[in-house]
Amino acid sequence: MKSDLLSNIYNPADLRLLKEEQLTQLAQELRRFIIDVVSVKEGHLGASLGVIELTIALHYVFNTPDDLLVWDVGHQAYGHKILTERRENFHTNRQLNGISGFPKRDESIYDTFGVGHSSTSISAALGMAIASSLKGDFEKEHIAVIGDASIASGMAFEGLNHAGVTDANILVILNDNAIGIDPSVGALKKYLTSVKTGKNPRQNNIIKSLNFDYSGPIDGHDLPLLIEELNRLKKIKGPKFLHIVTTKGKGLQQAEENQVKYHAPGKFDASTGEIHIKYEENLPPKYQDVFGLTILDLARKNEKIIGITPAMPSGSSLKFMMEEIPERAFDVGIAEQHAVTLAAGMATQGMTVYCNIYSTFLQRAYDQVIHDVALQNLPVIFCLDRAGLVGEDGATHHGVFDIAYLRSIPNMIIYAPINEIALQNILYTAQLSLNNPIAIRYPRGRGVVADWEVNNFGRYKTVKIGEASCLKNGTKTAVLSTGTIGNNVISALNECSNPENIAHYDFPFIKPLDYNTLHHIFTNFESIITIEDGVKNGGFGSAVLEFAASNNYKNKMQLLGIPDHFIEHGTVNELQQICNVDVKSLINLFSNEAK
Amino acid sequence: MKSDLLSNIYNPADLRLLKEEQLTQLAQELRRFIIDVVSVKEGHLGASLGVIELTIALHYVFNTPDDLLVWDVGHQAYGHKILTERRENFHTNRQLNGISGFPKRDESIYDTFGVGHSSTSISAALGMAIASSLKGDFEKEHIAVIGDASIASGMAFEGLNHAGVTDANILVILNDNAIGIDPSVGALKKYLTSVKTGKNPRQNNIIKSLNFDYSGPIDGHDLPLLIEELNRLKKIKGPKFLHIVTTKGKGLQQAEENQVKYHAPGKFDASTGEIHIKYEENLPPKYQDVFGLTILDLARKNEKIIGITPAMPSGSSLKFMMEEIPERAFDVGIAEQHAVTLAAGMATQGMTVYCNIYSTFLQRAYDQVIHDVALQNLPVIFCLDRAGLVGEDGATHHGVFDIAYLRSIPNMIIYAPINEIALQNILYTAQLSLNNPIAIRYPRGRGVVADWEVNNFGRYKTVKIGEASCLKNGTKTAVLSTGTIGNNVISALNECSNPENIAHYDFPFIKPLDYNTLHHIFTNFESIITIEDGVKNGGFGSAVLEFAASNNYKNKMQLLGIPDHFIEHGTVNELQQICNVDVKSLINLFSNEAK
Repeated sequence: MKSDLLSNIYNPADLRLLKEEQLTQLAQELRRFIIDVVSVKEGHLGASLGVIELTIALHYVFNTPDDLLVWDVGHQAYGHKILTERRENFHTNRQLNGISGFPKRDESIYDTFGVGHSSTSISAALGMAIASSLKGDFEKEHIAVIGDASIASGMAFEGLNHAGVTDANILVILNDNAIGIDPSVGALKKYLTSVKTGKNPRQNNIIKSLNFDYSGPIDGHDLPLLIEELNRLKKIKGPKFLHIVTTKGKGLQQAEENQVKYHAPGKFDASTGEIHIKYEENLPPKYQDVFGLTILDLARKNEKIIGITPAMPSGSSLKFMMEEIPERAFDVGIAEQHAVTLAAGMATQGMTVYCNIYSTFLQRAYDQVIHDVALQNLPVIFCLDRAGLVGEDGATHHGVFDIAYLRSIPNMIIYAPINEIALQNILYTAQLSLNNPIAIRYPRGRGVVADWEVNNFGRYKTVKIGEASCLKNGTKTAVLSTGTIGNNVISALNECSNPENIAHYDFPFIKPLDYNTLHHIFTNFESIITIEDGVKNGGFGSAVLEFAASNNYKNKMQLLGIPDHFIEHGTVNELQQICNVDVKSLINLFSNEAK
Repeated sequence: MKSDLLSNIYNPADLRLLKEEQLTQLAQELRRFIIDVVSVKEGHLGASLGVIELTIALHYVFNTPDDLLVWDVGHQAYGHKILTERRENFHTNRQLNGISGFPKRDESIYDTFGVGHSSTSISAALGMAIASSLKGDFEKEHIAVIGDASIASGMAFEGLNHAGVTDANILVILNDNAIGIDPSVGALKKYLTSVKTGKNPRQNNIIKSLNFDYSGPIDGHDLPLLIEELNRLKKIKGPKFLHIVTTKGKGLQQAEENQVKYHAPGKFDASTGEIHIKYEENLPPKYQDVFGLTILDLARKNEKIIGITPAMPSGSSLKFMMEEIPERAFDVGIAEQHAVTLAAGMATQGMTVYCNIYSTFLQRAYDQVIHDVALQNLPVIFCLDRAGLVGEDGATHHGVFDIAYLRSIPNMIIYAPINEIALQNILYTAQLSLNNPIAIRYPRGRGVVADWEVNNFGRYKTVKIGEASCLKNGTKTAVLSTGTIGNNVISALNECSNPENIAHYDFPFIKPLDYNTLHHIFTNFESIITIEDGVKNGGFGSAVLEFAASNNYKNKMQLLGIPDHFIEHGTVNELQQICNVDVKSLINLFSNEAK
């Protein structure tokens, strides 16, 4: 098939010049374009393939960007980006200085609201709709496209609950494919399935009960039907809800058949769909697998252990435990608030709960951490995956605030392992006899210990709570690192001039701080450098400053970490360079320091 | 009526010795007991009066504390406290070292889960229920009592969504009285009203759609019916839902008729119900009214101004604007997450949105502040009411984390006015031309400027962003205060010995900090004291330390504020004493400092 429709579309105005019967060909071209680029450049695949028809229909029927379109989460917005002035830049997707993997207001007037975290679209679109009607514009449509996993999150319900009693021009489109990143769960999913399979009496409609004009479910890959229905809804004022059924990965057989893997498959063969398997002998393990394999091992021996993930069984690797011990491993859906308080409830009954939440998503449950866990001093074990800079997912997903937002909470222990062995040991220690909640933060991706599983797995050691350690002696300057960024320090010290002047201390415990070691450091070193993979404002370095002030130490201090602005997308190394915490920057710093 | 039943009940085991026909008398006695004590000692009234029958029925039918009972929010738990070993201490309610106004695990084995913030009960009870079944206990019941305002919050939906697909022994009791603190709002409330009035076809049942065994609605003041229904539900395994209809304030005519005022009426006449009006000539205004009157005044002149409150129209005083300009003032219900992203959506369309949320409740929307507002640098104006120590509501409600959790977020401006005039001026300035989000934090209760409304109201001045000011000169020590705690400093400086040594600077902007003034201070004073009505870890003082470190200043520094443990309930002055930030503690500190 010759791609001659897509290449002539710069933006939706061009799209709207096409005849309706041409749109099916355009859908094929758009699908192929996405597959061709993502197969080489990587990114999120399945979600966008599933909404090709919806994307075309929306921009065809509605007058974007005047009508305002909000994509929930945004994994599915590649087709939208390509049709809205970014086809030629699409190959820069998720790269430093390239376009973002998510809709982003700075990037395009067609991206009406920046997304990344789920379930914000209804609230945002409603806000826009209310603003429009206050400005006297009663024609403009405000559209939220939200998946069935996202709509089950509490925030989406809050948006529906409000929208239903307004007369705002809001159209909520439920893109129901029964999967988020992993398969959807919960009572609402079960209800939606009953609707789709005709097993639900039509009157029994949750959405109608919330005062919406409900239509559907209809086939979301049937372009003429979609266009007809959207044209009909366009004429109806007030809150409307369209339920469409789609297949994630539509149009690429492997992606349809293995939807979890093809959510973000990495590089693959654009014609066959085969994923390119990298040869990975003797690479260090992913921190995720260290968590997943360790909790399974511990849970086999300790019947009180429970694992919880809000919708990330694959991403967190809790899937291993879910497969072997399903009665004690829970995917609660995109419900971070519930996940944390559920864990607290379990902890009151003496269970040992590992609540695994990405650092950036624990922001969703901040109050529950304070109010339900820390205030009651319940020993919940928070495993904060993807802490620090996460790379290509960018500004919405960096887990850089957690140290600052957690260390102000009384009773919390905060631990950042320097490597896989330290992570395993703290996971082991946490289930022995902690009397406090603990947050264990570790990054996305691979660690540093080759042959970890062969040589180190299961050789548990008890971690002494609050203890720092000296990794390298020195005479003049002490570098205090917390977490895996300490490996950058180790590398830099191996390459800087005069390394003998510089000592390196590993402070895995951000809270409680090791006061003894700090007294030793402040007494024995002229100057002190702290480094962390988190924001400097209020972070680990700030805690060390507080110690110094309360003990009246006058040493020179320098704080390294994430500066006070949002960091965009790029490789982790590129982003570390921007923050001056990459190995090369540290070599320069240490070499000057050591003079 | 002689009170002879209640006085013989120490705990529910005694209650269960009564005959069912005696319970109506007990309900009368319990109601009277609460009225008598609260009329003198103050506290929350209406909610507990509304669930007297339910409280008795639950403890009568179920085997508490073995069966686990979770009260959502906890305003309604006075009857529960009185029947569970705390009758004799009930007069110490909400006082320092007395019992808490909310259920609290430390206080009683009958308080299975600490509450205060809403909508946690379903998640907590489900966690307990899952733990019980893992321990092989399939008989134990786990009960969440939740109001119709609280169940509309997203977190409660997340709990229902999960519970519905488990076989956990959980009984959710919806106490539907159509009011939280203010009247309930939203589509779910409308739906519940249709159910109660018989206008909803019974098949169309949201709760049944979520896979619960639903029963009701029944009269929640009909004790025999309640007991019968609870006995029936006791035999049913799995997730169950009972919908009861009650009247808030039941049994005290004025409380039934004016439910908002009698939520927490202060002192009143126990026999007539009349509220004791204090004579209040020339008292300074409440900060709440400064906000409420000012936003109304500004909104009259600026059509872009919108006000949002999540369920606190009375508490925040947004009610003034809601009455006069209802189309631009929104109560969105207990939905902090939605409130913030709704505001963000409105801001994208050029509206000037004042989003008023209690400091402690903004914890519920932390991710939305970061992800939807600050990351997109939308100029939403957050008004953080009840910041700092709030007094008798205690540990769950102190607004002491906000400085720490907000100042790590890029793009945020954080302002804490020292008095009512400063609050009004920043509210005025914020709607002029801010390009950033701003958080304005101010405390509960009255300010310090008498005759504010007569002499100062509407005399707006533009606040220069980021500017600190010198309130008092001195020679040796500089005290840097932020917010209204600065008035304690002023008072203490008036009474300490050698005040000439001590300067006082007001730093209303916690972010951005006034670097010029800080350079002046660090250059001209030997030692520096910071003081804030917030946690010291990561707070304002910590920001000043970061400034000092990055500029290599060596001055002696002392940080005052909330220490690293949870602060309980008591008067604000009592709690300030515990934290050493009351006037007397400051007089001592300054007098020693000035030597």
